[in-house]
Amino acid sequence: MPVITLTTDFGTADTFVAQMKGVILALAPDATLVDVTHDIPPQDVLAGALALESIVEAFGPGTIHVAVVDPGVGSSRRAVAIQTDRAFFVGPDNGLLVPASCARGQQRLSVVHLTDARFHRPHVAATFHGRDVFAPVAAHLAMGTPIDRLGPEIDDPMVLEWARPRREPGAVVGQVMRVDRFGNLVTNITPADLRGASAFIHVWLPACGPIPLVHTYAAVAPGEMLAYVGSGGWIEIAVRNGHAADTLGVTRGTAVRITE
Amino acid sequence: MPVITLTTDFGTADTFVAQMKGVILALAPDATLVDVTHDIPPQDVLAGALALESIVEAFGPGTIHVAVVDPGVGSSRRAVAIQTDRAFFVGPDNGLLVPASCARGQQRLSVVHLTDARFHRPHVAATFHGRDVFAPVAAHLAMGTPIDRLGPEIDDPMVLEWARPRREPGAVVGQVMRVDRFGNLVTNITPADLRGASAFIHVWLPACGPIPLVHTYAAVAPGEMLAYVGSGGWIEIAVRNGHAADTLGVTRGTAVRITE
Amino acid sequence: MPVITLTTDFGTADTFVAQMKGVILALAPDATLVDVTHDIPPQDVLAGALALESIVEAFGPGTIHVAVVDPGVGSSRRAVAIQTDRAFFVGPDNGLLVPASCARGQQRLSVVHLTDARFHRPHVAATFHGRDVFAPVAAHLAMGTPIDRLGPEIDDPMVLEWARPRREPGAVVGQVMRVDRFGNLVTNITPADLRGASAFIHVWLPACGPIPLVHTYAAVAPGEMLAYVGSGGWIEIAVRNGHAADTLGVTRGTAVRITE
Repeated sequence: MPVITLTTDFGTADTFVAQMKGVILALAPDATLVDVTHDIPPQDVLAGALALESIVEAFGPGTIHVAVVDPGVGSSRRAVAIQTDRAFFVGPDNGLLVPASCARGQQRLSVVHLTDARFHRPHVAATFHGRDVFAPVAAHLAMGTPIDRLGPEIDDPMVLEWARPRREPGAVVGQVMRVDRFGNLVTNITPADLRGASAFIHVWLPACGPIPLVHTYAAVAPGEMLAYVGSGGWIEIAVRNGHAADTLGVTRGTAVRITE
Repeated sequence: MPVITLTTDFGTADTFVAQMKGVILALAPDATLVDVTHDIPPQDVLAGALALESIVEAFGPGTIHVAVVDPGVGSSRRAVAIQTDRAFFVGPDNGLLVPASCARGQQRLSVVHLTDARFHRPHVAATFHGRDVFAPVAAHLAMGTPIDRLGPEIDDPMVLEWARPRREPGAVVGQVMRVDRFGNLVTNITPADLRGASAFIHVWLPACGPIPLVHTYAAVAPGEMLAYVGSGGWIEIAVRNGHAADTLGVTRGTAVRITE
Repeated sequence: MPVITLTTDFGTADTFVAQMKGVILALAPDATLVDVTHDIPPQDVLAGALALESIVEAFGPGTIHVAVVDPGVGSSRRAVAIQTDRAFFVGPDNGLLVPASCARGQQRLSVVHLTDARFHRPHVAATFHGRDVFAPVAAHLAMGTPIDRLGPEIDDPMVLEWARPRREPGAVVGQVMRVDRFGNLVTNITPADLRGASAFIHVWLPACGPIPLVHTYAAVAPGEMLAYVGSGGWIEIAVRNGHAADTLGVTRGTAVRITE
């Protein structure tokens, strides 16, 4: 009973996702389908890559992750599948899949260019490879087709430019990668990036002072700011029972400077 | 392992959809449930019919499609089930199901009026036939109950008025049926409606000139308009990497005139 | 094939829900997962409790309901599981689960404090017990682990303050508990609270007169107000083919006075 996850920018008001599921279930009726999210902002490949990266660790071995954020659909961009020692990834070769396939110490075993049309739908719409290429390929993987039958191996999958924090004298400078539903600010900084941090970290968003580095929201009073290592392993900044992004006027991309 | 799809205007913030699923799974525990969309605008039967029509082809034989956009719930409008040579359709007799049951050359085998209360829940709420009539009927179909046991056959299901493009001298006049999440305009015009179209079609929305008729977005430069046959078989109009509906000020119902 | 439902305030744009599902399916691959809703307003425990209460009756025996609306995550608030003669409930001990576990005449059999870390994930993030405690516990219950192995029994689960209608001379005064997607006002008043009601009830929202108490929308003309016993058993107030909340300027908490 293989698990197939779906991450797209298709939204849930249109029927694109349901069409993909219909195709998968017609070929792999025993597959268990899990929606990761379909609310990736349209064509935002980086946001899709971050979403996909965040869920790999929670799923069991052999899971097949399909992701479609695909502004280049129908162009010469390649369609690819990646096998690691933990999971499969299927989608466009635009950088969307690579961070997830490297996460959590995975060993990448194979990357193939999906050229064999026998594993696609008979008619491939130039604007919807999610339904006509990626869905049937995922279903065939779920049914046990070895990845090397899907097309030739390649060694140059496109890698996404991914903002990394940089060190300055006495500080680490990163940025807000994502604002979650609660208004918490997820940064691109991990505990390993913080050398001297102890009880407090000094966060410099547009304007902020020292913030306590704690374990959870309840460690500060309601309305107070806090920093903590979030469930995805990144440093996050929040306002207890509040909405940090609105309070601070912060959006994705805002610089975060942590002094030691 | 039958597949049951759900298309409603219930949204996902309330629990109506989950209640339907609970009822189905209590009767047909092996069913695989697929959400088509629950974001049909409230009581918009035509939008529901278009959504349902768009997904039929992607699902395998024997799929049971339940749809509930039901402003007349509890009135004298009939509850119906339709069997074709490909699928089952269950819902209110208000035109919602008929386009999907005719799509893609299906042969309609039977339409029944769902009168036999043994296949409904013991207590039927007058405002929620989705949970108390359509869900259990779908579950019974999934468990193998023949459709003719559910009620008497009828031959006059309500047919929805559906805008068709009309021909004028040297032109086809249709309309925008739907704006998708990317802002692309899905018209009610198919390639068969276009006699003389070749490399360019002349689209007259409120104000537009010739637009290239191409295969996919990448065929034009970012910011340029294009027309193409969308994945559902309709002519669509888009702005590459843009939002055609916002750019052009177009909404559902806007006339589209294509000159030859 | 146990059914596990999920009710959270996580939204569907972030990947929190998918992470929970990954954890559950890795431990209980045969489980059928059903989303109740993830659009509970952030940290609104009462709204979560109402959503959960509304769906219990639709699901079959043995269903495992996981709910996470958890402003106190990581604090000293307890994690709990409840077994009734009908279902299991897993979540934070903040009142979220109790109304659902009492609904529809259920007998509560056991309440346990989830202290045994063998049934949690090896590393528990202080901010995400949904993934690291509640998801694996639900999976273990689905695989047949008896509830009394999960931790010690307790007899004082936190009970949520829940607004009840009160009687005045010749009237019942309740409030709007929820506005649904159609703008219908779901009150906290049941038919049993109405002694003398017959064909009409006199509803006093900020300003209203008598409203017919009918069975369904179609009993009044489009645009007219109506009251009826909704599918959840509560008195609801609606405008046929309209949006009562917008029309009347009513939100959750607005008092509703029904005179006899």
